[in-house]
Amino acid sequence: MRIVEKIADLKTIIRAQKREGKTIGFVPTMGYLHKGHLSLIETSIRHNDFTVISIFVNPTQFGPNEDFDRYPRDIEGDLKKAESVGVDVVFIPAKEEMYPQGYMTYVNVEKITDSLCGKSRPGHFRGVTTIVNKLFNIVEPDRAYFGQKDAQQALVIKKMVEDLNMNVEVIVCPIVREEDGLAMSSRNAYLSDEERKSAAILYESLLEAKEMVEMGERDGKKIVGHIKNKIESKTNAEIDYIEVVKASTLENADILEGEILIALAVKFGQTRLIDNITLSC
Amino acid sequence: MRIVEKIADLKTIIRAQKREGKTIGFVPTMGYLHKGHLSLIETSIRHNDFTVISIFVNPTQFGPNEDFDRYPRDIEGDLKKAESVGVDVVFIPAKEEMYPQGYMTYVNVEKITDSLCGKSRPGHFRGVTTIVNKLFNIVEPDRAYFGQKDAQQALVIKKMVEDLNMNVEVIVCPIVREEDGLAMSSRNAYLSDEERKSAAILYESLLEAKEMVEMGERDGKKIVGHIKNKIESKTNAEIDYIEVVKASTLENADILEGEILIALAVKFGQTRLIDNITLSC
Repeated sequence: MRIVEKIADLKTIIRAQKREGKTIGFVPTMGYLHKGHLSLIETSIRHNDFTVISIFVNPTQFGPNEDFDRYPRDIEGDLKKAESVGVDVVFIPAKEEMYPQGYMTYVNVEKITDSLCGKSRPGHFRGVTTIVNKLFNIVEPDRAYFGQKDAQQALVIKKMVEDLNMNVEVIVCPIVREEDGLAMSSRNAYLSDEERKSAAILYESLLEAKEMVEMGERDGKKIVGHIKNKIESKTNAEIDYIEVVKASTLENADILEGEILIALAVKFGQTRLIDNITLSC
Repeated sequence: MRIVEKIADLKTIIRAQKREGKTIGFVPTMGYLHKGHLSLIETSIRHNDFTVISIFVNPTQFGPNEDFDRYPRDIEGDLKKAESVGVDVVFIPAKEEMYPQGYMTYVNVEKITDSLCGKSRPGHFRGVTTIVNKLFNIVEPDRAYFGQKDAQQALVIKKMVEDLNMNVEVIVCPIVREEDGLAMSSRNAYLSDEERKSAAILYESLLEAKEMVEMGERDGKKIVGHIKNKIESKTNAEIDYIEVVKASTLENADILEGEILIALAVKFGQTRLIDNITLSC
């Protein structure tokens, strides 16, 4: 496994692979790898001849009062995990390598970034699409892998690739969960023991919402109300949003029909967690 | 010479060329080809195995009160010219092919797009960088060619390619001029006979500015003043801007030093023309 810090070096490695006709899989991460990341990486290794992962805590996707500085980091642990599953290259650029002095170009997907996490985190998706655009140009992957946990992110990246005619297939992989249902996230490390226990309520409430839909409920507001009640009555968590939207456009779905995404963001103490579930109605 | 209207078809052609190890040159245009375009195309043909040009009047780079609807078009003439110099592929997509229903992604270079033409034409460069980004992803050229006449555009595109780590070399070619010095432009077709005669003053005044600098003048304001006086005293043209800036950053250069760009935009009747000259101080 090679560890690469410079863009030019990675481009040289990629070009050599492509000359040999090898397919490239890519998993961009912010590190602190968990089983969710590893499932993406393992899928990439299965699908492609050569798998690159990046570890880069991207400053442009954090707001001024967010957790950029304290985002959990464990490069040594990450490298061991990456090596153990068979990653070919880990790309770990410095901030100045990705955003040198005088940097001034941004990629923005409009409209579908106005709702859900985009509403709570202004500028977040602009940072995500910019760094992913850069990484796609550096790695030139045939396929790139993202987790369904960040459902809006996956949709926004697919939209960027489609709109800008980029030459990469974006593959979205299922959410990996802890035993009690909590979606895997690097940010789970922030939770106190008590918060960690409470946080299981997110998936429980999504499963209850699913059950409501399966029993015939089609009123989005009633579903949101049920999840909200459950979380507020059982925890001290602060709800950022709970939304029922069309899965393909993130438009509000007051009446459930077709492919539906139920997505939520909830703060346990200082820690903001997201989760979601998709349903066919 | 192949004429291609669909993105997918062009990607197939490009992939076949790349598999054979051919280098791809690319000249994006809005059509109504003149000798300036042809000099770019001929340079591309000299440098590369396979040359693609695009003809697309890009709606997103025109403001609401600009000349999108009346921009001059002559596809038949353009195809003849392209064929005569040996272009391999002309890409002529429909508007809906480039911006389908639901399009929502834009690429923006900040700061260096705030001055000069960016100031007079808000949103213009966002449209330019978005379409060029798309075209680069479709054509995947080794080299792309732009005219120095649009000096700010060339700089903005170079900056986009650098910032987004795109895999293309941007080559800027010298301005091609009419006999009386007027810079070649598709928009020259708008000029009345009288306006056409007057317009020669742009290059004359730039040459006088150059002479002033060669004689030792280093005061940017005096140079701007001289050009302004000359144009206002000899024509009815309306000055949009005359600026003396650093060639690499477009920052104001009150005192000339290093590589300098003297750029201007002037309206003759309804027709806005631009021209510029670069100098080493």
